[in-house]
Amino acid sequence: MKYSIGVDYGTKSGRAVLVELGTGRIMAQSVKEYTHGVMDEYLPDGKTKLPPDYALEHPNDYLEVLNVTIPDVLRKSKVKPEDIVGLGIDFTACTMMPIDETGKPLCLYDEYKLNPHSYIKLWKHHAAQKQANRLNEIASLRGEEFLSRYGGKISSEWMIPKIMQILEEDEEIYNKADRFMEAADWVILQLTDNEARNSCTAGYKALWNKQKGYPGKEFFKALDPRLENLVEEKLSENIYPLGSKAGELTKRASILTGLKEGTAVAVANVDAHVTVPAAGITKAGEMLMIMGTSTCHIILSDKELIVPGMCGVVEDGVMPGFLGYEAGQSCVGDHFDWFVNNLVPKKYEEEAQKRKISVYDLLKEKAMSQKPGESGLVALDWWNGNRSILVDVDLTGMIIGMTLLTKPEDIYRALIEATAFGTKMIIDTFKQSGVDIHTLYAAGGIAKKDEFMMQIYADVLGMDIRIAKSDQAPALGSAMFGAVAAGKLKGGYDTITEAANEMGEVMDKYYTPDSHNAAIYLKLYNEYKLLHDYFGKGENDVMKRLKEIKKSVT
Amino acid sequence: MKYSIGVDYGTKSGRAVLVELGTGRIMAQSVKEYTHGVMDEYLPDGKTKLPPDYALEHPNDYLEVLNVTIPDVLRKSKVKPEDIVGLGIDFTACTMMPIDETGKPLCLYDEYKLNPHSYIKLWKHHAAQKQANRLNEIASLRGEEFLSRYGGKISSEWMIPKIMQILEEDEEIYNKADRFMEAADWVILQLTDNEARNSCTAGYKALWNKQKGYPGKEFFKALDPRLENLVEEKLSENIYPLGSKAGELTKRASILTGLKEGTAVAVANVDAHVTVPAAGITKAGEMLMIMGTSTCHIILSDKELIVPGMCGVVEDGVMPGFLGYEAGQSCVGDHFDWFVNNLVPKKYEEEAQKRKISVYDLLKEKAMSQKPGESGLVALDWWNGNRSILVDVDLTGMIIGMTLLTKPEDIYRALIEATAFGTKMIIDTFKQSGVDIHTLYAAGGIAKKDEFMMQIYADVLGMDIRIAKSDQAPALGSAMFGAVAAGKLKGGYDTITEAANEMGEVMDKYYTPDSHNAAIYLKLYNEYKLLHDYFGKGENDVMKRLKEIKKSVT
Repeated sequence: MKYSIGVDYGTKSGRAVLVELGTGRIMAQSVKEYTHGVMDEYLPDGKTKLPPDYALEHPNDYLEVLNVTIPDVLRKSKVKPEDIVGLGIDFTACTMMPIDETGKPLCLYDEYKLNPHSYIKLWKHHAAQKQANRLNEIASLRGEEFLSRYGGKISSEWMIPKIMQILEEDEEIYNKADRFMEAADWVILQLTDNEARNSCTAGYKALWNKQKGYPGKEFFKALDPRLENLVEEKLSENIYPLGSKAGELTKRASILTGLKEGTAVAVANVDAHVTVPAAGITKAGEMLMIMGTSTCHIILSDKELIVPGMCGVVEDGVMPGFLGYEAGQSCVGDHFDWFVNNLVPKKYEEEAQKRKISVYDLLKEKAMSQKPGESGLVALDWWNGNRSILVDVDLTGMIIGMTLLTKPEDIYRALIEATAFGTKMIIDTFKQSGVDIHTLYAAGGIAKKDEFMMQIYADVLGMDIRIAKSDQAPALGSAMFGAVAAGKLKGGYDTITEAANEMGEVMDKYYTPDSHNAAIYLKLYNEYKLLHDYFGKGENDVMKRLKEIKKSVT
Repeated sequence: MKYSIGVDYGTKSGRAVLVELGTGRIMAQSVKEYTHGVMDEYLPDGKTKLPPDYALEHPNDYLEVLNVTIPDVLRKSKVKPEDIVGLGIDFTACTMMPIDETGKPLCLYDEYKLNPHSYIKLWKHHAAQKQANRLNEIASLRGEEFLSRYGGKISSEWMIPKIMQILEEDEEIYNKADRFMEAADWVILQLTDNEARNSCTAGYKALWNKQKGYPGKEFFKALDPRLENLVEEKLSENIYPLGSKAGELTKRASILTGLKEGTAVAVANVDAHVTVPAAGITKAGEMLMIMGTSTCHIILSDKELIVPGMCGVVEDGVMPGFLGYEAGQSCVGDHFDWFVNNLVPKKYEEEAQKRKISVYDLLKEKAMSQKPGESGLVALDWWNGNRSILVDVDLTGMIIGMTLLTKPEDIYRALIEATAFGTKMIIDTFKQSGVDIHTLYAAGGIAKKDEFMMQIYADVLGMDIRIAKSDQAPALGSAMFGAVAAGKLKGGYDTITEAANEMGEVMDKYYTPDSHNAAIYLKLYNEYKLLHDYFGKGENDVMKRLKEIKKSVT
């Protein structure tokens, strides 16, 4: 029997799984929290204070994950290293860093360790909004065609705004940086000594396109004359499609991980995207929702079309041979956590405690006894802005319909429904733009655990929803890519489709809409849509004005 | 030294105060809860179930108040009955009842005691909405000019819809009723054997006008042919202006109360309206806000004008010689109670408990540390519908601007601000209609206790606010009217203005706007107004449609 290993790098920890090929069975798993965690207040010296909206990480933490978790899964599973045919990883993105010509991260230099810009900027580093705004303005003025591939707007979370921020705020670091790189690709470089940048992050986060490459020199020059040759000087045009082999494990990496030198290593991937094969998704028209703190939507298609408010469309960006569309909702699990942490009364907490259930379960139980429409409430799910389809971080939450009889569970249910309406808005927009979506899958913590919420989604969306079976879908997906990097001859697979067909799996139970509820939800969705357009499309910019007033007084 | 007694009949209890004339000093007070309380589920037999939205009371409870509280204040104060020159009462309204030709309430008949319609309908009996709707429709079709004196809409809480309901649902009771009467006037009848109906309830609740009398026969006939002669048959056109003497205490009433036979008794009044002289308000352009569960606004003026959405304008309806305008907000204290009962987290309740302060005080303390605009929130204060200026019970609450950092105190403060914006909307509407408002007073529990809220009101309204000093302002006002009924010769006063000047009093401390805060609140008010008009004036009737959907599923 042959095996592969997938490593899923999250925001706060890394997780390795050791997977049996052919079945997808997880033989062992292991988690390592990052030693430095997310640095959003201080640098590692504990003294250098970071400005607002910073979120940095430390590269040693990523190597530590390999050093701790891979030996651990080998030990737990008793699988021999020679039976591990391949290794794949996935990462948050855009999580980027400046390195020198040898690949050494600049933050490891003594002379730069107090420069915040020498560290890794995590995906949720939000301090480059000014740069993103300028980039969008200039791109729009110049009529740059790449914009339409990203729903009309580039996020401050992505590669180019983050590089612009470094250039503007610490030119020394910018100049010292031989290259800027996704942390995902840097880890692959550490494993293989080969710089094999992946098409997923290049496409979704660094404005690269398989046909057209990066935006042109004139565009970069317009951003800043010093950026004219950014691509040649500090990025790379050597982009590897997903499913490729990045290289083989070096001796140094073999010592680090306990795996055999020469083990095949796949090019890196992004956590959401790599979940697609783990759910067995291999066809155009299939959409996966990865539901957690936020929701990421991935759609496979055979057509490249312009969809308003999508996060991006990338050829080979998810599965080779397909256009991969991405969309997102910024506030899903976060939304419910906010409610539970701030607005659940003592009597509910005590009832939950007494009955030894979670407050979430208590709220669900109470909300479940209601019919759709019974609360009289509708909410806009924008507590954390709106990613798709409005691409506007300055939008905020709204809830309407409260009376003196409104109960906490009414609001809780309305928040759930609002996220479902937000998903319907995304699906409808894709369909109206010509991208077919005929089958729905969901993965992530909420999808597996929250039957109440998933049934609401099925009712609101009017579609069946199938659930990815694995609890560790991203890591499983990475292990599949590791097996593909090895190839069939070495006991792996030749294509990710083959791997997905054999190892990807959904649960037997799936959610199917109740037609009576679906009819009521259609009415409520119409109200949501009216409010969505009124507050989201410029008719009444009260949300933005309130933010302006807030800024002016604090 | 001479004294008078005021009795304030509330929703759940009656309260007597014994007051020193000249100073307004309260020498003693006494409260009696109504024995039957508010009957909203069962008749006194405990078996006869009441339909939804019923709220009934029992007339014996009102006599019991006199029998218990007046001897009690005499005893406590050691004042001799011969030194009590007069007695006045105020009541909730429209709180109405059917009586026979001797004044006996029909519910005291054995044969009617199981008929719900034989009882007293409390002001908040809300089961005559159907009748009110028909009345409004017919009045509007017929172009009845009285409508404009009531802001364009008659409330289901008022006299005619309640009579219509009795006629339609229990014609036997309607026929047996010799008269329909405000409970306030019935208590006066019990005290004096004289039917001296007051101009305040007649004007504000029974569509009577000093110049034009009641609506015409044709109108009543259009409501129902059986109502054509309602006024002559079952009401009275003999309306006494406020400040009149209704009569003198009968021997029977003297035994009931312990007061001397022949003591002067004033015509009855309404709780909110009688508070005006208690605050020393005697001039046109002065407005009083009585702030509690809901807020009632009373404005003295020398002009009769049409003001959209006012509750009513009545000549001599508050103080003789003035037009008295009334407006209202249905959800003020109720609003905060709702929040505290439903959405305050355990950690806050525990903190309050530990520090031995109320949850309200804790929320206030946290909200107080913020600047206006800092929460980023705006709410519409319609949890209980909107009385003025939209006169629409089907409107509901809304809150906008939430982010994942929104805290309970942010929402609490936004709810307070929303009620202040609602008041500003009312004041602005009166001013725009030509009714001058140059001085603001407040009375009631909130006005005296909640400095934080009153400062927000001053800042939002951009005006100084003075606070009625007495904790028992309605009862004090009633005592003043009692003294006026006695007249100067007997040691009382000849006019309520004289009484108000001597006995009415505001606190030394008053609230004055902070100009910096006022400027920010003006911006927030503009946002409130935009949302108020969008959701309240038919542009987006989502609140009503959500109520319709709710009704259709429950």
